[in-house]
Amino acid sequence: MPLDRYSIIDSTLREGEQFSTASFTTAQKLEIAGLLDEFGIEMIEMTTPCASPQSEADIRALVNAGLRARILTHIRCHRDDALRALDTGVHGLDIVIGTSPLLMTHSHGKSIEQIIDLAAEVLTFVRAQAPDIILRFSTEDTFRSRESDLLRVYLAVADLGVVNRLGVADTVGIALPDQVYSMVEQLVRLTGLDVEFHGHNDSGCAIANACAALQAGATHVDTTILGIGERNGITPLGGLIARLYTLDRAYVAKYNLPVLPRLDRLIADLCGIEIPFSNYITGSSAFIHKAGIHTKAVLADPATYEILKPQDFGLSREVMIGHRLTGWNALRQRALALGLHLDDATLRALAQDIKRRADVRPMALHEVDSLLQAAAVTQS
Amino acid sequence: MPLDRYSIIDSTLREGEQFSTASFTTAQKLEIAGLLDEFGIEMIEMTTPCASPQSEADIRALVNAGLRARILTHIRCHRDDALRALDTGVHGLDIVIGTSPLLMTHSHGKSIEQIIDLAAEVLTFVRAQAPDIILRFSTEDTFRSRESDLLRVYLAVADLGVVNRLGVADTVGIALPDQVYSMVEQLVRLTGLDVEFHGHNDSGCAIANACAALQAGATHVDTTILGIGERNGITPLGGLIARLYTLDRAYVAKYNLPVLPRLDRLIADLCGIEIPFSNYITGSSAFIHKAGIHTKAVLADPATYEILKPQDFGLSREVMIGHRLTGWNALRQRALALGLHLDDATLRALAQDIKRRADVRPMALHEVDSLLQAAAVTQS
Repeated sequence: MPLDRYSIIDSTLREGEQFSTASFTTAQKLEIAGLLDEFGIEMIEMTTPCASPQSEADIRALVNAGLRARILTHIRCHRDDALRALDTGVHGLDIVIGTSPLLMTHSHGKSIEQIIDLAAEVLTFVRAQAPDIILRFSTEDTFRSRESDLLRVYLAVADLGVVNRLGVADTVGIALPDQVYSMVEQLVRLTGLDVEFHGHNDSGCAIANACAALQAGATHVDTTILGIGERNGITPLGGLIARLYTLDRAYVAKYNLPVLPRLDRLIADLCGIEIPFSNYITGSSAFIHKAGIHTKAVLADPATYEILKPQDFGLSREVMIGHRLTGWNALRQRALALGLHLDDATLRALAQDIKRRADVRPMALHEVDSLLQAAAVTQS
Repeated sequence: MPLDRYSIIDSTLREGEQFSTASFTTAQKLEIAGLLDEFGIEMIEMTTPCASPQSEADIRALVNAGLRARILTHIRCHRDDALRALDTGVHGLDIVIGTSPLLMTHSHGKSIEQIIDLAAEVLTFVRAQAPDIILRFSTEDTFRSRESDLLRVYLAVADLGVVNRLGVADTVGIALPDQVYSMVEQLVRLTGLDVEFHGHNDSGCAIANACAALQAGATHVDTTILGIGERNGITPLGGLIARLYTLDRAYVAKYNLPVLPRLDRLIADLCGIEIPFSNYITGSSAFIHKAGIHTKAVLADPATYEILKPQDFGLSREVMIGHRLTGWNALRQRALALGLHLDDATLRALAQDIKRRADVRPMALHEVDSLLQAAAVTQS
């Protein structure tokens, strides 16, 4: 099963740096990378050394930080860029070139023949310089490229025998899961190489697409913490973890899951953003149950309405009871927690009372508790 | 093509009310429904009248508000609940009952045989009372139910000849797109009835699943504004629109798209939450381009890195240039906007200068402008 041997490439320090408010200092990059390492991320991708002097220096800093995670940098398909990257001692190069008609026109102006020639030149050059480096070749905007163009490029590159991994990139967030599955399955079958998926989230399929890639045999998936990246970002680390956990918890057993909330918090703080209320696992309400029909069942067995166990992430669930959707079963549970034994008729009447009050204004827990205590006095 | 004839059931006033911080007054519900109507939503689902006195009164208020959208309410499979709902004059009833082993044990304690009998009794009763009402029957937790149980229930219900629509619900957010496709395709083929999909987002597939349902022939999809709902919510309206728009803009041409940002803003304000930075279309950076390689291409043709046109939603794009990933093409564009004609060598040198400065601290636009103006003076 492919999902037993996948790795995550976290690109918070590359794709994530392309998020509007992200600008990490060296110390912050070391902190992020250290926490990713503690989580168990296998590879960390960094901005090209050609971006700025600090970008180059930071690659060296991370390579020398003694992390278990391998450090990669993401560069254009240029010999000069490759030389500069190799000079940092980085563990892997992620080389990319656009193959969609729009990017061929407006990004680099090269034809498919020229792309194949350039890729051959740069990739064989890199391999000659660095026999042991992890070398990836990816197209950009894969899902708006002609399939015949893609196959010509990928098969030519695979035939060089110098790359470890092929990359498939949904650069604009347009792909559907079945398209990702087909493309990855085809590359795995035709080349036998490792395959990586990188997916943007403009149309909300980044997690489903990453999952489809893994099911098709992809060995690597790109994430960023909270999904930060160009525009609205890419597959979020926490979202991918949630997806794989719910397929089979064993798929994520290799990661230190309680570190995830710290990662999300760190990036939110460094970027001056809030963790989305709707975020996977760490969103403010991810483990809150509210409607009466839900709370009744969750109190009997959390698995009724929870496919992720909050305690696996060092988090806890909450059952809300001071609102108009409150159910009497949840009130009974709360009463028991307060040491109060109320009969069913009392609890049902209390639920109606709370609904009426909450129609005016939701009640705080201490207000509900006062009603429960008063009812206990009246009843006894 | 199924996608030409689908409807959206917005459930902000039902599922959305189950979000932790949601508690809408009558006036707020009317405001939300009015704006949904202006957007062009076909159906609006409201909390059961059995929840609280105001919940019941609010259904009447919306039914009498003169909206084009049909008003539905979501009730348990109980004759009493149905009677109370019918009394409000609501246009449609969405009836639901749990069919997964966990919910059968902890929600209602009924067997499949009992579910079938109860559904037959309640549904035929409703149809006898209200010959013209829109009547839906849905299972709950469909994707953790036994497929044989589901088919027995759905086929028995379809055979009654009294319901307009069958519902498929990923209540815990566990389904994958191919599972949703298979289930919906099967129901459409076997029953010929309309089919509705309701999907939670715990593992990040709510949008992909809704899209798969439509591709399989579903006629209705549930959304909420910003996706608010139990836990981390369901398919967000804006996310579904983004997904369908990127398949074919014609699929969403029936909606008044510039209303979408107002809907998202309204719900964020009423719930005291922020629009997620990563939100579809209305997130703070959804149309921001930052890395040099992106900005160069976007300035030549926005379609290079944009599959949604911001102007279709009354929004605009932004190209960032005061950071370490800045490219000189974007600087040239900014210089031209300021009426400055700088040569390429000057622009390239300026880009290097900005990268060095931004390595220390990102620059504001007015600071970049000052550098461009100073360079123009030096050059001339």
